[in-house]
Amino acid sequence: MFFLGAQLATHRKATIPGRTMALNTNDNVAVFLEKGVLTVKTTETPTPAKHEVLIAVDSVGICGTDVHIWMTGNFGDKIVKAPLILGHEPSGVVAALGEGVTRLKVGDRVAIEPSILCRTCDYCKRGRYNLCTDLKFCGVPPTNGTLVRYYCHPDDLCHKLPDHVSLEEGAMLETLAVGVYACERAGVTLGSKILIGGAGSIGLVTLLTAKAMGATDIVVTDIDQSRLECAKQLGADYTMVADSKDVRKFAKKIEHALGCMPDIAIECCGAPSSVQTGIYATKPGGVVCLVGLGPDDATIPISNAITREINIRTISHYGHGYPTALSMVASGKIDVKPLVTHKFPLAKSLDAFEAAKKGENGTIRVMIKVSDTS
Amino acid sequence: MFFLGAQLATHRKATIPGRTMALNTNDNVAVFLEKGVLTVKTTETPTPAKHEVLIAVDSVGICGTDVHIWMTGNFGDKIVKAPLILGHEPSGVVAALGEGVTRLKVGDRVAIEPSILCRTCDYCKRGRYNLCTDLKFCGVPPTNGTLVRYYCHPDDLCHKLPDHVSLEEGAMLETLAVGVYACERAGVTLGSKILIGGAGSIGLVTLLTAKAMGATDIVVTDIDQSRLECAKQLGADYTMVADSKDVRKFAKKIEHALGCMPDIAIECCGAPSSVQTGIYATKPGGVVCLVGLGPDDATIPISNAITREINIRTISHYGHGYPTALSMVASGKIDVKPLVTHKFPLAKSLDAFEAAKKGENGTIRVMIKVSDTS
Amino acid sequence: MFFLGAQLATHRKATIPGRTMALNTNDNVAVFLEKGVLTVKTTETPTPAKHEVLIAVDSVGICGTDVHIWMTGNFGDKIVKAPLILGHEPSGVVAALGEGVTRLKVGDRVAIEPSILCRTCDYCKRGRYNLCTDLKFCGVPPTNGTLVRYYCHPDDLCHKLPDHVSLEEGAMLETLAVGVYACERAGVTLGSKILIGGAGSIGLVTLLTAKAMGATDIVVTDIDQSRLECAKQLGADYTMVADSKDVRKFAKKIEHALGCMPDIAIECCGAPSSVQTGIYATKPGGVVCLVGLGPDDATIPISNAITREINIRTISHYGHGYPTALSMVASGKIDVKPLVTHKFPLAKSLDAFEAAKKGENGTIRVMIKVSDTS
Amino acid sequence: MFFLGAQLATHRKATIPGRTMALNTNDNVAVFLEKGVLTVKTTETPTPAKHEVLIAVDSVGICGTDVHIWMTGNFGDKIVKAPLILGHEPSGVVAALGEGVTRLKVGDRVAIEPSILCRTCDYCKRGRYNLCTDLKFCGVPPTNGTLVRYYCHPDDLCHKLPDHVSLEEGAMLETLAVGVYACERAGVTLGSKILIGGAGSIGLVTLLTAKAMGATDIVVTDIDQSRLECAKQLGADYTMVADSKDVRKFAKKIEHALGCMPDIAIECCGAPSSVQTGIYATKPGGVVCLVGLGPDDATIPISNAITREINIRTISHYGHGYPTALSMVASGKIDVKPLVTHKFPLAKSLDAFEAAKKGENGTIRVMIKVSDTS
Repeated sequence: MFFLGAQLATHRKATIPGRTMALNTNDNVAVFLEKGVLTVKTTETPTPAKHEVLIAVDSVGICGTDVHIWMTGNFGDKIVKAPLILGHEPSGVVAALGEGVTRLKVGDRVAIEPSILCRTCDYCKRGRYNLCTDLKFCGVPPTNGTLVRYYCHPDDLCHKLPDHVSLEEGAMLETLAVGVYACERAGVTLGSKILIGGAGSIGLVTLLTAKAMGATDIVVTDIDQSRLECAKQLGADYTMVADSKDVRKFAKKIEHALGCMPDIAIECCGAPSSVQTGIYATKPGGVVCLVGLGPDDATIPISNAITREINIRTISHYGHGYPTALSMVASGKIDVKPLVTHKFPLAKSLDAFEAAKKGENGTIRVMIKVSDTS
Repeated sequence: MFFLGAQLATHRKATIPGRTMALNTNDNVAVFLEKGVLTVKTTETPTPAKHEVLIAVDSVGICGTDVHIWMTGNFGDKIVKAPLILGHEPSGVVAALGEGVTRLKVGDRVAIEPSILCRTCDYCKRGRYNLCTDLKFCGVPPTNGTLVRYYCHPDDLCHKLPDHVSLEEGAMLETLAVGVYACERAGVTLGSKILIGGAGSIGLVTLLTAKAMGATDIVVTDIDQSRLECAKQLGADYTMVADSKDVRKFAKKIEHALGCMPDIAIECCGAPSSVQTGIYATKPGGVVCLVGLGPDDATIPISNAITREINIRTISHYGHGYPTALSMVASGKIDVKPLVTHKFPLAKSLDAFEAAKKGENGTIRVMIKVSDTS
Repeated sequence: MFFLGAQLATHRKATIPGRTMALNTNDNVAVFLEKGVLTVKTTETPTPAKHEVLIAVDSVGICGTDVHIWMTGNFGDKIVKAPLILGHEPSGVVAALGEGVTRLKVGDRVAIEPSILCRTCDYCKRGRYNLCTDLKFCGVPPTNGTLVRYYCHPDDLCHKLPDHVSLEEGAMLETLAVGVYACERAGVTLGSKILIGGAGSIGLVTLLTAKAMGATDIVVTDIDQSRLECAKQLGADYTMVADSKDVRKFAKKIEHALGCMPDIAIECCGAPSSVQTGIYATKPGGVVCLVGLGPDDATIPISNAITREINIRTISHYGHGYPTALSMVASGKIDVKPLVTHKFPLAKSLDAFEAAKKGENGTIRVMIKVSDTS
Repeated sequence: MFFLGAQLATHRKATIPGRTMALNTNDNVAVFLEKGVLTVKTTETPTPAKHEVLIAVDSVGICGTDVHIWMTGNFGDKIVKAPLILGHEPSGVVAALGEGVTRLKVGDRVAIEPSILCRTCDYCKRGRYNLCTDLKFCGVPPTNGTLVRYYCHPDDLCHKLPDHVSLEEGAMLETLAVGVYACERAGVTLGSKILIGGAGSIGLVTLLTAKAMGATDIVVTDIDQSRLECAKQLGADYTMVADSKDVRKFAKKIEHALGCMPDIAIECCGAPSSVQTGIYATKPGGVVCLVGLGPDDATIPISNAITREINIRTISHYGHGYPTALSMVASGKIDVKPLVTHKFPLAKSLDAFEAAKKGENGTIRVMIKVSDTS
């Protein structure tokens, strides 16, 4: 049993591509991927189960994964078979409480951690829930995502925002959580010298996080000069246009710029040449942390890695990143607002996806304002 | 064989208590503790051995340990038997090189890490050189310290300062290294909530370090309101006058101020009541890191600690703290300049010790300018 | 909805203290602590909820905690207010499945991990579920225990025993899990030199675990010579009668026996003198792991601990100990059978508790055969 | 100044290939690699420097690295330019002491850890001396090895053998130290399920070490059935002939044999197919530890590794492996005697190298008895 809060009544209409649809008070509307096409259409409003809350979604960021699923109809071996609601970077307002919910109350503003966990497998019990054997991740088939006006989620995965943190900042926490987890796994600490491969949104939040952890010297590389500009503005100590042809030479250039080999390389773009550069560049005994997904296979300089005792770590989603990401934003140690470069109302979701796909000059994060039904 | 650089020739005179002494070019002068009395007198200028450098000492900070040895004639079971040169927080300029030195050159400005290591015991080989079974620590009997114009030290323990870092900042690195090591051992990280017990110089550098590591909420406690003011100015989120009578109640107050139990308590004053407060206050599974030395024995709430799985860590000196401390100062992430509150020329060393002993309003670190022989 | 398996029908009668009670097929019988008295009486047979199984309990070990609750009516600040079923070291046979159970089937023999977890607090999600903010532990007020013929439990906390592992061995896993967790937390590894304080059941399973982890030199201390005999038989390299008067001298004796200071001390008896001995004896930089609960407060040689950088760790219950404990028993690396020294049928539970309380010569673990209703 | 002990006088003659050479009492004889040819010839007897000891070498094992340097004249980018004494798996007897040696006395039997460390670089000071920036490793150009009757080495790297450990066992510690370090780096612990790729000498010592650490289920793979027999005899739970064609299928077979995916894969042969198998086989979040050196580059299933959060660790030589390896042998937890399958006197060194090169049925470790000058 649940109570539909006042929030629900305020959304009355949604313009969807091609037409305007009159919505009844309780109509729910979502962005579906259906037979390769994005469709905004009504869907049932769910009822929160025990320990769940109903959220009136406010903002949802669109990232490369969303675009990839839209373009290809799959994410790895997970294939879109039925109409799928996309989106996994949401924030919103609690509209109703399921049974037993005490952590939150109606009206609380929250960032939604877009995982659904089994809670009983060995990974969940050992605190590595991102490896849950039955992990459901919003917007990745066959699990519906959060590009929907009303959405239910476990209460403990809805992180309450303090008053001074906006819902858009809340929607950025998903991206930031990746940066936090990457830096934690990579072992960034006071005085770390770091190479970040790729200045896309993940590379940039990794940069911001590494600086907040006390890293002193950070090189960011990319093939796109405009992205490097952005990295520079966000605090990169050095930016370098990546040379994917002669990676050993490029590794030497990085060492020369830093004045030493980096302790850590965090690879955020997925290009094999960037992985190779990371291995060659990192100091003996250092860490190369692989975040970006690229081709299935890559050739790596394995003997170089072994004889120099390089550690290669990888990350899949993130565990426990949200509370830390939130505390960074709430304390002002990390400012994610400059990362939100584009906003679209729900009805213009197609434009939003196209902007994210193009990723033209200065695009970092495109956000869909689900609550904006104008 | 070594070369006496130009540096050496510039010091010609030293006023010592009670009189003025004419010094020959190569005269060396040191602050000795002799039969309980501080004496400034000449001593032989040492010759750097293989892999050592001769340093023209510039600045030496005076801390509680120096005052303790002066007052009591011992440090734990280490007793001053022969005239002992005090001082262990030095910086200076390389004046001559011993055989095989390639890391440094004459004229380099360095912070001197005041340990002499055996390099061959299991601790040294395992990277825990601060536990070296044959550790010699400058200024702790029977090892002479650095309150001397010319001093020899292993080259790898002399950390070269960049041009924009002053020699006084260099002399502060010893203190900062304690803070760095304490925070590392305590596991401070992004978003940590921390209780620091004691706002003396160690508490303050711990505060600065914890903030640079991304800690978001820091409470500092002390019995002295003026020290708390200082902590506030240096960035403490909360300061509280310590209640040593009812430590459980005080622990609750700390929790109330922070909005949660701290993840970590770093005890920097040595008072048993502060240790007890740390244990009661810290959240289950958290860390209490003991830095301050107090009485030999203390009563601790051991069942509370066990049933809440508290980890108690301790630190003795520091390992590897200098490079990190230096990178913090060099990068501007930590500013130690406000900690240097008093300066005295070498000849006024007694005044310096007395100021450090009194520790009156606003005293944080007293520094002796060894190079100032006016 | 659940199915009552064949197992249920086989128990028809239970002799309880003072009389024999005829039981109907589905009667359930438990050992209650009621107004300070142990009572064997019927109770309702529970129905397994979603993801729970109904277990026909076979064996339940009785440990010091059970005796303590019986004697005092509390465990720390948890007070027995209503009739409480005791027992937290159970094994049994799956008798029925709740909804959604796929891990187990009726007839599976299992060891029951006696915790009930919230699964949603930060501790649970971070893999430290033994610190769950809403932890319910069987047999600790106000949570009923497992000294009952039919008992329901979450399926993922029921660990399936291979055919060659007996239900009594299964009941010993709870104790062994403490040893496993203690050794893991203490960092026991290949070649570790270890001091174990106390040769009760926890000390002994710690000994067995440490040996299985590759520890090479283990000293066990106790005040009781017969327990030390037992430790000797189970593989202790050295056994020593504890001297609680002059702990520094005793620490020296331990060092002399081992030929070096131990790397690790694991304190399993709770006596402050044993904690003190552990601190004095352990080598610089070593670990003292506190397992045994004693008085609320203890005096410890804190300056000795700090100047020698001793790490004090503590354990509360255990996390993830069951799978490892089971693999040790199943692989034959640890033999727990010699630890089961006494067995009593359910109806003689009072005798069982009294035997456990006395702990006379050779008593290690007293077990109640709940399935024995003769 | 040093004293030539009685040991020295006992070796009077050495038969070298093709002829017999009369030796004076103090003649020293070594196995040189010179212009691609192995030569046994006299060399100067060295004098131990400060903190060094002179060792009368007893036994030296010959491993694949020695054979590789013999065959190719290089080890990676380290090229044999001048006559080079080979050998890096030595044991011997202390024949003389350099200045300041107190750890050892003449007549002590020792295993020689074949590294020479700078002691002052950041790696040495941080306890990762195997990554020393100036590491000299015996027998790897341009550093002379230990296939020589009289050899000088730093005293702290000569590990004293207890009376009951033979000099041949001492010579096996170098190999065992690799297994110890590999298992430590891989995180082997109680109950680990492990895949070991390759049943050569490194694979076998890894097997022995993993079992001593409490691993319960170990699969060893190799392309050679006779080596797998050997692994079986030394305690492998499962052995499987490697399928380098269809590595995904082979990974599935391994999972099927174990009953689960291994927690850890330790790759000891260097074949890219074995690395790939390790990645595919290891469970999500697990560790693949690369020990064997193969081609410069390898293709790896990088997306599989990232999405399953596999950790790839590597090892270069070992740090701190000797004391642990020695304690394993001394305590009887690991028996290395079966690994010594061939012995040759010094004069038959060429036969020894040829036997090691062929590695025919049952060959594990070939040992040259340097002290056997018959």
